[in-house]
Amino acid sequence: MPLGDNLGDKSDSRYCGVETEFNDDMPHVLSYNINGGFDFVVAPLMEPGYRPSMVNSANRESSVLPFAGSDLVLSPAQWSSHVVGKISSWIDLDSDDDVLREDSEIALKQELAWASHLSLQACLLPTPKGKSCANYARCVNQILENLNNMQLWLRIPLVKSDDNDDDSVNGTSDGMVVEATDSWELWNSFRELCEHHSQLSVALDVLSSLPSVNSLGRWFGEPVKAAIVHTDSFLTNARGYPCLSKRHQKLLSGFFYYSIQIVLSGKAVHNLPVGSSASASGQTDNYTQQAQRHEIRSYLDYVGYLYQKMEPLPEQERFEARFSTRPLLNCFYKCQIFFFYSCINVDLSVIMQLGYRDFLQSPLQPLMDNLEAQTYETFEKDSVKYIQYQRAVSKALVDRVPDENASTTTVVLMVVGAGRGPLVRASLQAAEETGRKLKVYAVEKNPNAVVTLHSLVKLEGWENMVTIISCDMRCWEAPEKADILVSELLGSFGDNELSPECLDGAQRFLKPDGISIPSSYTSFIQPVTTSKLYNDVKLHKDLLHFETAYVVKLHRLAKLSPSQAVFTFTHPNYSPDKSNQRYKKLRFEIPIETGSFIVHGFAGYFDAVLYKDVHLGIEPTTATPNMFSWFPIFFPLRSPMYVKAGSPLDFHIWRCCGSTKVWYEWCVTSPTASPIHNCNGRSYWVGL
Amino acid sequence: MPLGDNLGDKSDSRYCGVETEFNDDMPHVLSYNINGGFDFVVAPLMEPGYRPSMVNSANRESSVLPFAGSDLVLSPAQWSSHVVGKISSWIDLDSDDDVLREDSEIALKQELAWASHLSLQACLLPTPKGKSCANYARCVNQILENLNNMQLWLRIPLVKSDDNDDDSVNGTSDGMVVEATDSWELWNSFRELCEHHSQLSVALDVLSSLPSVNSLGRWFGEPVKAAIVHTDSFLTNARGYPCLSKRHQKLLSGFFYYSIQIVLSGKAVHNLPVGSSASASGQTDNYTQQAQRHEIRSYLDYVGYLYQKMEPLPEQERFEARFSTRPLLNCFYKCQIFFFYSCINVDLSVIMQLGYRDFLQSPLQPLMDNLEAQTYETFEKDSVKYIQYQRAVSKALVDRVPDENASTTTVVLMVVGAGRGPLVRASLQAAEETGRKLKVYAVEKNPNAVVTLHSLVKLEGWENMVTIISCDMRCWEAPEKADILVSELLGSFGDNELSPECLDGAQRFLKPDGISIPSSYTSFIQPVTTSKLYNDVKLHKDLLHFETAYVVKLHRLAKLSPSQAVFTFTHPNYSPDKSNQRYKKLRFEIPIETGSFIVHGFAGYFDAVLYKDVHLGIEPTTATPNMFSWFPIFFPLRSPMYVKAGSPLDFHIWRCCGSTKVWYEWCVTSPTASPIHNCNGRSYWVGL
Repeated sequence: MPLGDNLGDKSDSRYCGVETEFNDDMPHVLSYNINGGFDFVVAPLMEPGYRPSMVNSANRESSVLPFAGSDLVLSPAQWSSHVVGKISSWIDLDSDDDVLREDSEIALKQELAWASHLSLQACLLPTPKGKSCANYARCVNQILENLNNMQLWLRIPLVKSDDNDDDSVNGTSDGMVVEATDSWELWNSFRELCEHHSQLSVALDVLSSLPSVNSLGRWFGEPVKAAIVHTDSFLTNARGYPCLSKRHQKLLSGFFYYSIQIVLSGKAVHNLPVGSSASASGQTDNYTQQAQRHEIRSYLDYVGYLYQKMEPLPEQERFEARFSTRPLLNCFYKCQIFFFYSCINVDLSVIMQLGYRDFLQSPLQPLMDNLEAQTYETFEKDSVKYIQYQRAVSKALVDRVPDENASTTTVVLMVVGAGRGPLVRASLQAAEETGRKLKVYAVEKNPNAVVTLHSLVKLEGWENMVTIISCDMRCWEAPEKADILVSELLGSFGDNELSPECLDGAQRFLKPDGISIPSSYTSFIQPVTTSKLYNDVKLHKDLLHFETAYVVKLHRLAKLSPSQAVFTFTHPNYSPDKSNQRYKKLRFEIPIETGSFIVHGFAGYFDAVLYKDVHLGIEPTTATPNMFSWFPIFFPLRSPMYVKAGSPLDFHIWRCCGSTKVWYEWCVTSPTASPIHNCNGRSYWVGL
Repeated sequence: MPLGDNLGDKSDSRYCGVETEFNDDMPHVLSYNINGGFDFVVAPLMEPGYRPSMVNSANRESSVLPFAGSDLVLSPAQWSSHVVGKISSWIDLDSDDDVLREDSEIALKQELAWASHLSLQACLLPTPKGKSCANYARCVNQILENLNNMQLWLRIPLVKSDDNDDDSVNGTSDGMVVEATDSWELWNSFRELCEHHSQLSVALDVLSSLPSVNSLGRWFGEPVKAAIVHTDSFLTNARGYPCLSKRHQKLLSGFFYYSIQIVLSGKAVHNLPVGSSASASGQTDNYTQQAQRHEIRSYLDYVGYLYQKMEPLPEQERFEARFSTRPLLNCFYKCQIFFFYSCINVDLSVIMQLGYRDFLQSPLQPLMDNLEAQTYETFEKDSVKYIQYQRAVSKALVDRVPDENASTTTVVLMVVGAGRGPLVRASLQAAEETGRKLKVYAVEKNPNAVVTLHSLVKLEGWENMVTIISCDMRCWEAPEKADILVSELLGSFGDNELSPECLDGAQRFLKPDGISIPSSYTSFIQPVTTSKLYNDVKLHKDLLHFETAYVVKLHRLAKLSPSQAVFTFTHPNYSPDKSNQRYKKLRFEIPIETGSFIVHGFAGYFDAVLYKDVHLGIEPTTATPNMFSWFPIFFPLRSPMYVKAGSPLDFHIWRCCGSTKVWYEWCVTSPTASPIHNCNGRSYWVGL
C-alpha cells in the first residue's frame, strides 16, 4: 500500500519496502509483508548457509540450484513487482582467502542469474567488505555487460568520519596520503571501475548517526534508488512510539523529493500496546482487523506520516505538468529525442508525467529557426514575466516623460522580436497605467507570427498606436529613432540566444539617450553532481553530445557550491572597441566537510536587469517566483571529474564569436585539467 | 651538416639547430648559420615590436602583414627544411591585461597562419607566462584543430624545485594544496587541455642547473622534439673551451638516443683564440676557411663530439633492422596496419628503417592460427634461446639418468609444438653432449610445419630417434609416457599465448615424476609514460584498441618504477582444484623526487625457469642477452592517468578463462579508479 498520494506526485518514493530474513516459503513472506502494509520485500533468494565449494567442483557450475525455491511459488508479476533480491551478504570478493573469494564469485553469478531469471526489477548487492573492491567491481562489471533490465543496488552505509577531515588532504612524512573514512569514496571507486553503468545504483544504509548536511547533499546527485532505514535509528516519542530525529526527518524528505524508496530493516525495538498504533500517526489502519499486525508496522506508519506531511509540489511544477514549456524542442530535435528514447525503451508517458524533470533539450536557434505557434502560446502564458516587463516599461516612461509633459510628448517604443504581441500589450498597458502617449513599432522576423500580430492589432483596435514591421531587426532601416527598445531575446544562460548580437544590431535606431529594456543581463554557473544527466548524455555514444549545452529542468542533482557570475552584457553599448567575446575563469571553493565529490558538469542561469530595480531571472537564490519560461542550462563534462575534499575547482568558459556563429568553449583546470570542450564550436553553436 | 653518422642510426637527433634573433634578411640568417655548421634555424618570423592593437581595429584581421618578409626570399624547400618558426615571445594569452591578451591571440593566429603558409615543419611557442595557461591552451587548441602537418613545440624550461618536495603533497591548514614548481605540471595541464594532440609537442629549455635524474626521466615518455641548450649552461674546460657537466652530458646522450634534436641558444660566453676550435673537439673544420666562423661554433663542435662518442646501436637492434622479428604481424593484421599507416601518411620505409621501435603489433593467436614460414625462420635464428634450451635439457638428462645408466636407459622426450624442429635439434644435441640415449616425439599441429619436420629428420638422419606426430597436443593420445616435456609456447607476457592451457593438456602424457621444460614462468609489469604509443592507439578512435594488449619494441618511453611479478605458472601442475584464472593487485610506489607524472599504460615482460638455474626472459633487469624472439607487451589505459608526486599507483590485472577464450582485464584504483578494461574480453582475447 503506497505511503500516500502526495498531490499528484507519481514518483517511486510512494512505495516502501522491508528487508526480510531468508525463508523458503516466499508466498508467506510476501503475504505477511504486503498485508502488513509494505509494497515490496527485499528478500534473500538463497539459503544463507550454502557455499559453492561444498558442492563437488566438477559439477559446481552445471548443477541445479537446490538452495533456492522454485520460480513457480510466485507469479511472474509478483516476483517483478514485489520482490527485490537480496544477494548473500557473506559474499566477499576481495578477501585474501582464495576459497572464499572464488566461492563468492560463483555465488554472486548464480544468484544474479537466478534473480534475472525471475525478472526481478532489482537486486541488493552486499556492501564491499574492505576499502578495496576491485575484484568485486570486476565481477559485477562482467555481469552488468550482459544483464537484462535488472538494476543492481550496491548497499553503501551512510558514513563519513568528520572528526579528522584534515587527514584527507594532509600527507604523512613519506608522502602517502591518509584517507578519511567516507563511504562515498568506496561507491565512487566501484562505479568508476564499472564505467558509471546506468544499471548500477546505490542503496544507502541509514544509521542512527548522520554525517554533515553538506556531505549528505552529494548523494542526491548520485543514482540512489533506495534508503534502508534501520529500526534502531528510530527514537521514541513521548507516547512510546518510534519517531525520527529532525535531521533524519529532513533526510527522508529529501529521499521522498528525489524519488528514493524507503526500505525498513530490523526488528521492532519499541514495545507498543497492541492495536494502538493508528492513533500514533493519526491514520486509520484497515489491516489490523484483517491480518496479523506486522511487527514493524508502527515504523512504517511513521514513515507514511512523514511522507504525507511533505510539502506538495509547488504551483509552478504543477503548471509544467500540464503545459509544455519554453525551451521547447524544435520539431527536428523532438523527433530525434523521441526516437532516441523509444529506442532505449523509456516509456514516453513517464517523461510526460514527470514533466520536464531532468529531460535534456537542445537550446533554441532563435535566429536560424522560426518558432512554432505552440511555443508562442507557452511563452505568452508566463504572466509573471510580462508583469515584470510592464513594470519596467512603466518606470522608464515615467523617467522619460515628466508628468507635466505626459499629454504632449509621444514616446517612441520599439519591440524588437515582437512575436505574437505580448510585449506590445505589456507596453501599451504600461502607457495606459502611467498616462503616457506611446507610439509602438513591433518588429518581427517570423512572417507567421506577423500574421497573428496584424489580427491582434485589429482585434484590439491598436491601429493608431502600433506599426508592424515584418523584418529582421538586424537589417531594418527605421524611419525614426526610438526612446525605448524592448526585447525578450534572453536564453537560459542570458546571452546564449544571441541577445547581444541582436541588440547591438538594433541599437542603431535607438536615440543616444534611449533606454534598452533589458538594460543588462548576467549569466551564472555552478558545479553539479548529476549522474542521471551524465548517463543520458553518454547514451548517445559520441563526442558531440558531451560538448553541447542543454536546456533542462534540473531535478535529481547535487549543487556543490553557490553559483557565480559569468558574463555580463549591457545595452546600449557605445564602447568604441566593443566585442561580445568573453572569457571568465571561476574558482569554486567547496567546503571541506562536503568530502570528495564528482562533478558531471555545470548548471547555468541568468539574471536580467530590465530597468533599474526591475529584474527577471532564474538564478536559484534570486529567481523570479512562478516564472516558467526558462529552465536552467547544463554544460556537461566529457569525463566526470573527481574532486578530492578541500581541493578548489577551477572552471573556464569562453564565449567565442565567428562570422556565422557564436559558441562556448569550456574546461576545468583544477584539480586536474580536462580537455577544452567544443573547440571552434565543432559540436554546439548558435547560428547568426 | 649533421652532427655525425652514428653507426646507421638515421634518427633526427643528428641535426642540430640554432636559435636566432629577428632579422628581416632571412637568406643571410640562413646562410650564416648553415655555413656555420647548423642544420636549421629557430627564427622569429615577425618584427618583435609589432602589436596588433597598433593597427586600426577595423582592418586588423584583413590587413596585409607588413611586419614579416616575403615568402619568396627562400625557396619552399629552404623554408621547410631549415627554418623552425619562433612565435613572438611577448605573447601572453593569460595576462590580466585585456589589450595584451587580445593582441596576443591575434598575433599568435597571424604568425602561425604565416608559418603554415610557408609550410614550416614546426613552430616554437613561447613558454606560458604564469601558472595558468587555459586561455593560451584554448587558442592553441583551436589552431590545432585546423592545422596542416606543422608541429607546435611548446617551450618549457626544464625546472623542478626539489628543495620543497614535501610541499607538493602537504596540505595547509585550510585544506588547500600548495604546489611545488615543476614545469612538467605546466606542460601536463596544457596538453590535457589540448587533448593530447599529436601535433603538440615540447621543446625543453636546458639551463645550467638540472633537476633530479628521476624527474628528468619522465620527459623521455613525453613528445619532446627539441632541447634548447643555452650557451651559459656550458662550463669551461682546462683549455678554455666550452664543455658540459657530466649530468648535462648524460642528459644529451638521452636526447640523442631518443631522437630529440638539440638547438643551441645564446651568445658565445667563452673567449677563444681564433681558428683553433678544431683541435678542441678533435674534428677537422672545413668551414673556417671558406666562411666567417660562426660565433658559437665551438659549442656546436662540442655537441657534435658528444654525439659521435655515443654508444653505437647494440648488436640486437642492428639485427632487428635486418630481420623481421618474432611477434610478427599475422597477414590480416599486417594489412590492416599498413593500410592504417598509409591512410595517415606515415612513410612505411620510416617504420622499417627504425626497425620495430614503438610499432604496435597485435599478439599471436597461436592456437587459432598457424604460423607462416617466415615466422618460423625468424624464431629459429634466435640461437641464444636454443642454447638455453639445450643447457636445460642437458641438466635434466643428467639429473634423470646417472652416468652409470647412460648407456642402458633411454629417456623419452616430447617436444610439444615442435614447429620446424629447433627444439628437437637442441634436445638431440643435449643428448649427444651428455651421452644420454634419447627417444623424441615431435608433436606439431601445423601440417605445413610437419612437412618441413619430416624432411629435416630425413636430412639429419634422425629417423631412429625422432617420431613425428601431426596432432594438436591437447588431443593427442600418446603411446607411452614421457620423462621430459619440452615446449616453447611462451608469449611476451609469459602465459599470454596460452602455454598454461596447452601444457595442462599435454601433462597427461608426462610420467608422474616427469620434467617440464620450462618448469615455470612469471610475468612482470611496470607503469610507463609513452605519449607516442598512446597517440598511436588513439588514432583508431575506438574502444577496442584501448583495450588490447600490444606487442611492441618499446623505445620512446619513461619507465616509472621497477617491474613487479604478476602471474606464475608451474608445470606440471597436479593440484586437485587447479585453475589458470589469476588475479593480482600491485602497488607501485614511485619516488617522490620523480614529481608528478602521467601513466599511459603498463609494460609487461616474462621470465621463465627452463630447468633449475637455466632461465630465459625479457624482464629488463634479468633479460637474457642478445635474444630477440620477444618484444615487451603493452597494456594501454583508455585515459592517461595523472599521478601526483608521492601518490601510490595501484594496478589490478586478471587472467580470465572462458570455454572458448582466455583474456585479461585490468584497471587502476589509485590515485583514482579507471574503468575496468576489456570486460568479458570484449576487445581482446586469445582463442582456445
